[in-house]
Amino acid sequence: MRPSGRDLSEMRPVSIETGITKHAEGSCMIRLGDTHVLCTASLEARVPPFIKGSGLGWVTAEYGMLPRSTTSRMRREASAGKQGGRTVEIQRLIGRALRAGVDRSALGERQITIDCDVIQADGGTRCAAITGGWVALRLAVNKLMKSGEIVCDPLVDPVAAVSCGIYAGQPVLDLDYPEDSEAGVDGNFILTESGKLIEVQMSAEGSVFSRDQMNQLVDLAEKGVSELVAAQRAATQ
Amino acid sequence: MRPSGRDLSEMRPVSIETGITKHAEGSCMIRLGDTHVLCTASLEARVPPFIKGSGLGWVTAEYGMLPRSTTSRMRREASAGKQGGRTVEIQRLIGRALRAGVDRSALGERQITIDCDVIQADGGTRCAAITGGWVALRLAVNKLMKSGEIVCDPLVDPVAAVSCGIYAGQPVLDLDYPEDSEAGVDGNFILTESGKLIEVQMSAEGSVFSRDQMNQLVDLAEKGVSELVAAQRAATQ
Amino acid sequence: MRPSGRDLSEMRPVSIETGITKHAEGSCMIRLGDTHVLCTASLEARVPPFIKGSGLGWVTAEYGMLPRSTTSRMRREASAGKQGGRTVEIQRLIGRALRAGVDRSALGERQITIDCDVIQADGGTRCAAITGGWVALRLAVNKLMKSGEIVCDPLVDPVAAVSCGIYAGQPVLDLDYPEDSEAGVDGNFILTESGKLIEVQMSAEGSVFSRDQMNQLVDLAEKGVSELVAAQRAATQ
Amino acid sequence: MRPSGRDLSEMRPVSIETGITKHAEGSCMIRLGDTHVLCTASLEARVPPFIKGSGLGWVTAEYGMLPRSTTSRMRREASAGKQGGRTVEIQRLIGRALRAGVDRSALGERQITIDCDVIQADGGTRCAAITGGWVALRLAVNKLMKSGEIVCDPLVDPVAAVSCGIYAGQPVLDLDYPEDSEAGVDGNFILTESGKLIEVQMSAEGSVFSRDQMNQLVDLAEKGVSELVAAQRAATQ
Amino acid sequence: MRPSGRDLSEMRPVSIETGITKHAEGSCMIRLGDTHVLCTASLEARVPPFIKGSGLGWVTAEYGMLPRSTTSRMRREASAGKQGGRTVEIQRLIGRALRAGVDRSALGERQITIDCDVIQADGGTRCAAITGGWVALRLAVNKLMKSGEIVCDPLVDPVAAVSCGIYAGQPVLDLDYPEDSEAGVDGNFILTESGKLIEVQMSAEGSVFSRDQMNQLVDLAEKGVSELVAAQRAATQ
Amino acid sequence: MRPSGRDLSEMRPVSIETGITKHAEGSCMIRLGDTHVLCTASLEARVPPFIKGSGLGWVTAEYGMLPRSTTSRMRREASAGKQGGRTVEIQRLIGRALRAGVDRSALGERQITIDCDVIQADGGTRCAAITGGWVALRLAVNKLMKSGEIVCDPLVDPVAAVSCGIYAGQPVLDLDYPEDSEAGVDGNFILTESGKLIEVQMSAEGSVFSRDQMNQLVDLAEKGVSELVAAQRAATQ
Repeated sequence: MRPSGRDLSEMRPVSIETGITKHAEGSCMIRLGDTHVLCTASLEARVPPFIKGSGLGWVTAEYGMLPRSTTSRMRREASAGKQGGRTVEIQRLIGRALRAGVDRSALGERQITIDCDVIQADGGTRCAAITGGWVALRLAVNKLMKSGEIVCDPLVDPVAAVSCGIYAGQPVLDLDYPEDSEAGVDGNFILTESGKLIEVQMSAEGSVFSRDQMNQLVDLAEKGVSELVAAQRAATQ
Repeated sequence: MRPSGRDLSEMRPVSIETGITKHAEGSCMIRLGDTHVLCTASLEARVPPFIKGSGLGWVTAEYGMLPRSTTSRMRREASAGKQGGRTVEIQRLIGRALRAGVDRSALGERQITIDCDVIQADGGTRCAAITGGWVALRLAVNKLMKSGEIVCDPLVDPVAAVSCGIYAGQPVLDLDYPEDSEAGVDGNFILTESGKLIEVQMSAEGSVFSRDQMNQLVDLAEKGVSELVAAQRAATQ
Repeated sequence: MRPSGRDLSEMRPVSIETGITKHAEGSCMIRLGDTHVLCTASLEARVPPFIKGSGLGWVTAEYGMLPRSTTSRMRREASAGKQGGRTVEIQRLIGRALRAGVDRSALGERQITIDCDVIQADGGTRCAAITGGWVALRLAVNKLMKSGEIVCDPLVDPVAAVSCGIYAGQPVLDLDYPEDSEAGVDGNFILTESGKLIEVQMSAEGSVFSRDQMNQLVDLAEKGVSELVAAQRAATQ
Repeated sequence: MRPSGRDLSEMRPVSIETGITKHAEGSCMIRLGDTHVLCTASLEARVPPFIKGSGLGWVTAEYGMLPRSTTSRMRREASAGKQGGRTVEIQRLIGRALRAGVDRSALGERQITIDCDVIQADGGTRCAAITGGWVALRLAVNKLMKSGEIVCDPLVDPVAAVSCGIYAGQPVLDLDYPEDSEAGVDGNFILTESGKLIEVQMSAEGSVFSRDQMNQLVDLAEKGVSELVAAQRAATQ
Repeated sequence: MRPSGRDLSEMRPVSIETGITKHAEGSCMIRLGDTHVLCTASLEARVPPFIKGSGLGWVTAEYGMLPRSTTSRMRREASAGKQGGRTVEIQRLIGRALRAGVDRSALGERQITIDCDVIQADGGTRCAAITGGWVALRLAVNKLMKSGEIVCDPLVDPVAAVSCGIYAGQPVLDLDYPEDSEAGVDGNFILTESGKLIEVQMSAEGSVFSRDQMNQLVDLAEKGVSELVAAQRAATQ
Repeated sequence: MRPSGRDLSEMRPVSIETGITKHAEGSCMIRLGDTHVLCTASLEARVPPFIKGSGLGWVTAEYGMLPRSTTSRMRREASAGKQGGRTVEIQRLIGRALRAGVDRSALGERQITIDCDVIQADGGTRCAAITGGWVALRLAVNKLMKSGEIVCDPLVDPVAAVSCGIYAGQPVLDLDYPEDSEAGVDGNFILTESGKLIEVQMSAEGSVFSRDQMNQLVDLAEKGVSELVAAQRAATQ
């Protein structure tokens, strides 16, 4: 029934390749089927003004799509002169999600910026960015721990994200682009390895939904996230 | 336990005053306690390029805060030269929510723009904007029906929104600003009168949450929305 | 002869309602007929760099129109990405006018920002903004005096503004929108209660004018301002 | 008493040199003492959308200052990314003033853009721009009449502008920069050769003013404009 | 003598991997040592307004650097709100260079946009972008020829670019970042396979240079380009 | 054969008039035939952050064209809200070229900004700006030396620039606009009086070129620059 022939609760193949760029403190290319996102972590000594002197760290994120990551070429945001509403919304989400999994006092007064750049898009880029972004963050923190700059691990519980939705009347896991563009309900779920919820977003796109459907989507998300966390663990061992 | 002395499942007093500005096709001032939002509906004959000729209508929204709607003065976005990320995110949400309750083919090729301007802020402005925005939309559509320009009512099921969250470890309904700034979990829920879900957004702000807590918040939201819809009905009779 | 049936030297009904928003140090809604402007005063401890250390205070103003304050919806300036020429010109005028009535040394090194937001427009918004802005300023200064932060009253002579013009060949007081859009000459006059001039602006819009006509307009302005100052005094007693 | 040693009612030396740039349909360099403004008129076949098909023409203006036209270098507006409030206000004034002296129906559906670029500033640049701008406009219109494209002269009454103010308690004509920066009252007056008023702007800068003083400034302005019109006539014969 | 131990006239290892993204009409990742640039070609039916109806095609380019392609993180241009001067200069150069190798009449009225995004930077990114950009262009044109949309090959002579400079007093080929940041003279050379020059840019950076040195750099460039063209041919066979 | 009737190696008449504006530390109007550029030098005590404390000075440049310096009116960049790509490229070139002729340690920690504003354009504006910019710089430095603020002359070797190109198959010196718009190859050459090269830029515009042609253009450039340096010397004696 799904265009890709997948089962309703079947993820696309996941791969996470680390060490993509030599300059970043942490980096990976995450591939969820045909969705490919390059994630880098950049460490800086300074923190934003509003937490200066608090002893707390900060994690923030930026998101972009290469102009031809999509079926037809999109206008480059740098040349348009501003980030679109969708971009701003997504990068705020990524930052919020990753911060929820960080013990900011253990991190200490330093900032880590996660850049997520979509190389090829086929649905679910924001979820891939969060899952891959956590890997880049993990690698950068590992470096700080190895060098002894921080002692207590600030990343206690891995964070990953997956999309689920109602497609052709059925709840499905990990929407690809053909499904995403037809789905009646579209959701993004961010969870920790231990099954705690960080963010739940469900939107009616053309058809409203019931609480039963809501719960079916959360069930699927729990399954998806546990598979993603396994891939994160494998990549960062 | 709540700073305002309200029960856990008690809304702030709601009032919706219609006919606020003489130029708009529909307008109201919605007051949720100390949160006051002016909502206007503006009707235009044109639709966005991507639906020209489709026979479908469009509903969109813009959101703003007056500089001194807040405790300390905020910079005016027009003078800053761009809308901030939060503004963009909120106005996209309002538009999406209202569209979900519109039969766009019954509306026909016309656009209605809902402007939501916060006169005084005390938490929950985006939810108030959606609830009040629906009233302005209802009034504008009433005008079109009275004049015979449209025949079938495109607004079949009223739409309203309410925030809920975990405050001091307890699920509470309709967060005001003192609660919002301290809440560990913050959610916005958009429902129809018939209890269908349009949008669910829950974010961990400092503490993750369980599925049980998620369901308690949805329960509260259902209660809150039914009270808001009653106020909408009273204002538009 | 006037569309509204008013006499040539008759103002529209004026009302000034104070205490509109709970956060601002001073606020009012001024209504000149169908022109409604919300004015707030925001007090800050800092002053602009060019007077730091001078012991002098500063008063500045910003002006905006809600998108549907006008007959047809205007584009929101925050979304257009800049304030238009008319907005910039008006807010410079408001700030200059109010500063002319302030003893900046008595005010001391603090800044008061007057925000004037047009809720409904029917001509004469800049004059209403100045007259209402002075009320908001007065209320904010009253607070400073009550708390003992300033001792000498920096607002010695109330400031108000009114528009006059040549409409259908006749000098008329307080132009409303139908008159304003047809007037051959359009003027804005800012005076103090004691009859001193702060700013005189007269523009030919289609027909030039004589010195006699100039003087007739100033006569009308003196009458109008004295009525406005009475309303200001009543509102701030 | 004046820093320059001029009498109270004495203008600075005026010179108007035409034919400054070979590309423009009309051009001049106007020099009022040390204030030098290059004015060009550019003719285009198109008119702004709001008058298309009306048979009427349009005159508009833009104003700029070279970065080092002033005592210390100003930031280039093109590099700052926007025109400042003062620039916008001045160019709107120039356009409005010149249009007031044009029979737009005699001009026919064409647009003339007057560019006024300040090469060296010493006070009174906006007045110099209007006076010189009219000369550039006159030359461009002459060309249209010579070629027979227009038959009826649309420039019936020359337009010129001069500043006057209260300096050291005395009304003075044609303020230079040292006077302008100290003046208690500052005014700009735009008149036609026949003595009709187009625009009157008087601002209190530190001290309010009386109607008597207002009238003394208009007297001076009439004298100044008659001298400027003579220079315009001489330059365009 | 070179930090990398290379001979004076030795290029870094070159690799060109095609088919990097599934959406683009042509794509490759070019790697010159540690400089990695992703190049895509996007085909559109429309051409810029200034050549509409001319029968000629257009090739244009855009360039960007991922924020962490560099040693320390650069600010994202989309979030800064504009492309910097260096970016603009480079993308104009790429477009100009590639157009010089295209028979625009054989291409016909279509536009190909080459996007060059730097994944990892180690000097010479603009030259890598031109060399890789030509490969993406070649692949897109191949598709048009295979489908029969164009008949005559518009790419008659391959185009490639290399940097050369005076480093530690010696002419060297293909500067990497450590050399580039120390070079006294820095040049970019764009040539065709047949040895014709398309663009020559040489800049003194701290020390001026002689005509002899100029000629030595061109000699090196000829050698480098012939190696790059071999890699282009291998990748596109 | 040249539209102007000049010989292949004949420059247009050059004139350099100094002391154009009274405020600038150095200024000149350079005229190359019908290309007229006003150049000013502005001295500031501060240097850019990246060289603070280094003891070195800085020279930078900005470039602009008056809207009607060209055949048809160009949009004013300040009103467009940004400097175009061509402008940015040119002003970076001017700054780089002039810095190459400055001993920055002899200049000491001060910044000189060269503004080059094109009053009338007929080809070769960037070269005229460099040649005239050097004169303005020379005059500003003379002032510093006369006042004893600097002791060692930081301008050891005059810098000038000229364009050459292949027009109608022939190498020609100092292209004017009719030649520039038809040239197959277009080059800009920046040299010192002593014949050292600072910058060489040659671009194929429609036809590629050979090394022989490259050398012929450099020969012409050497001749042109020696004539320009003579004019610079004459103007600054």
